[in-house]
Amino acid sequence: MALLAIGIEYQGTAYCGWQRQRHCESVQQHLESALSEIANEPIELNCAGRTDTGVHAIGQVAHFVTSAERPDKAWVQGVNTKLPRDIRVVWAKPMTDDFHARFSAVARQYRYVIFNRSVHSAILAHRVTWESWPLDEQKMHQAAQALIGERDFSSFRAAGCQAAHARREVQWIEASRRGDFVFVDIRANAFLHHMVRNIVGTLLEVGRGEKSVTWVTDLLAKQDRTQAGMTAPADGLYFVNAFYPEAFELPVVELNELLWQG
Amino acid sequence: MALLAIGIEYQGTAYCGWQRQRHCESVQQHLESALSEIANEPIELNCAGRTDTGVHAIGQVAHFVTSAERPDKAWVQGVNTKLPRDIRVVWAKPMTDDFHARFSAVARQYRYVIFNRSVHSAILAHRVTWESWPLDEQKMHQAAQALIGERDFSSFRAAGCQAAHARREVQWIEASRRGDFVFVDIRANAFLHHMVRNIVGTLLEVGRGEKSVTWVTDLLAKQDRTQAGMTAPADGLYFVNAFYPEAFELPVVELNELLWQG
Repeated sequence: MALLAIGIEYQGTAYCGWQRQRHCESVQQHLESALSEIANEPIELNCAGRTDTGVHAIGQVAHFVTSAERPDKAWVQGVNTKLPRDIRVVWAKPMTDDFHARFSAVARQYRYVIFNRSVHSAILAHRVTWESWPLDEQKMHQAAQALIGERDFSSFRAAGCQAAHARREVQWIEASRRGDFVFVDIRANAFLHHMVRNIVGTLLEVGRGEKSVTWVTDLLAKQDRTQAGMTAPADGLYFVNAFYPEAFELPVVELNELLWQG
Repeated sequence: MALLAIGIEYQGTAYCGWQRQRHCESVQQHLESALSEIANEPIELNCAGRTDTGVHAIGQVAHFVTSAERPDKAWVQGVNTKLPRDIRVVWAKPMTDDFHARFSAVARQYRYVIFNRSVHSAILAHRVTWESWPLDEQKMHQAAQALIGERDFSSFRAAGCQAAHARREVQWIEASRRGDFVFVDIRANAFLHHMVRNIVGTLLEVGRGEKSVTWVTDLLAKQDRTQAGMTAPADGLYFVNAFYPEAFELPVVELNELLWQG
């Protein structure tokens, strides 16, 4: 038996998220079907971070176990011929037995993309979140710094979140602008359900000038979801990276100024 | 009667190009319907440069004449509420009688976007042209410089091209790379049918190393379409700008390193 890791990109608009579900199309279902066809046996995937309906990924990582022996290329080019155009396997790598896409990951990184212009983008509909009001990304950045560290993120947690507790460690968060695009980049050991979108919804209120920079500190202290900003739409959210111990030697997506840099 | 110019963005994948046709959906048809609704009278558009099936635009310009008096905002925000998400009016501006979107334009600019990675982009399907073979964009740039000046472009002209003659003036052409993206930017007084896509198809052969840098000079001299490269796909082609005399004071799309900068 071999254990393989794969790197995955998807444009999430057409799917009810990563996870296989009975009555809707999921990313996992499409990937498992394609992999099973290549392996000629049923394949089950575990991923680094499950994403919600409409959320995208450029650096999702998953692993599977198979008795099939195939060249690495078959797990990439071969599988891609069986997938819809909005899902791509970018790399495949044989791993040691101790690797697990979810449990071996020590941190995850998301990028949230806001298109900040009076008129929405025709080209990037469903790929960015549109905000017509001019945002002050420096205030957003300043406000966001209060989130860094190991804290209770109850104020930024979805009502239905299944996690045992709300403590997470945000390691880095940055709001920046490039032309009409405002990016919110965030890295944490793990995320609660809707945590990134609730943080971005809150930072948007700061960026519009509706709330002060210190509001985020107040919200954290309150530990009350009903006080924070709206959940920002799925359109602008990208799962960018899962980080693993270096010994696993897995590729990492480099963020640069381009919107989607693989 | 008022004459208005509008700036338009569209993602062309769903449309049989700019021009209204009987049996398919066109960009012109959607815009004229939306404008007519706002004007409460039939509106006809003239555009700076008609685009083919599947070709996109971030700086298309069109004009129309109307007896309706509306605030500029109605011609932008109002019209956008009547349009599909992949077509947006970005600005509107009242013009003097001597303006014509096509005949007043002194030059046009296109960008062709190539995604140059072993695996296609899941996020940018239909928005970029995929090339898996590593391209030498410096050779492409060097080869392209032979096209600059007023020349006979018969070798880069579609069989069905309706233009009276094949002389066009290419003012500027640049091939450049940013990460996995290779851009071909070109500005000319006007373009023949399929001219940009035939030029890019030719430059792709140079970039892959199949043809030498001097091939483009030979092709120009031959004035024979059958000798040049394939017509590159519509997916990667963007109408970026129509240029007008400065007196008209129309907005210009600034190209920078971002893929789509409005």
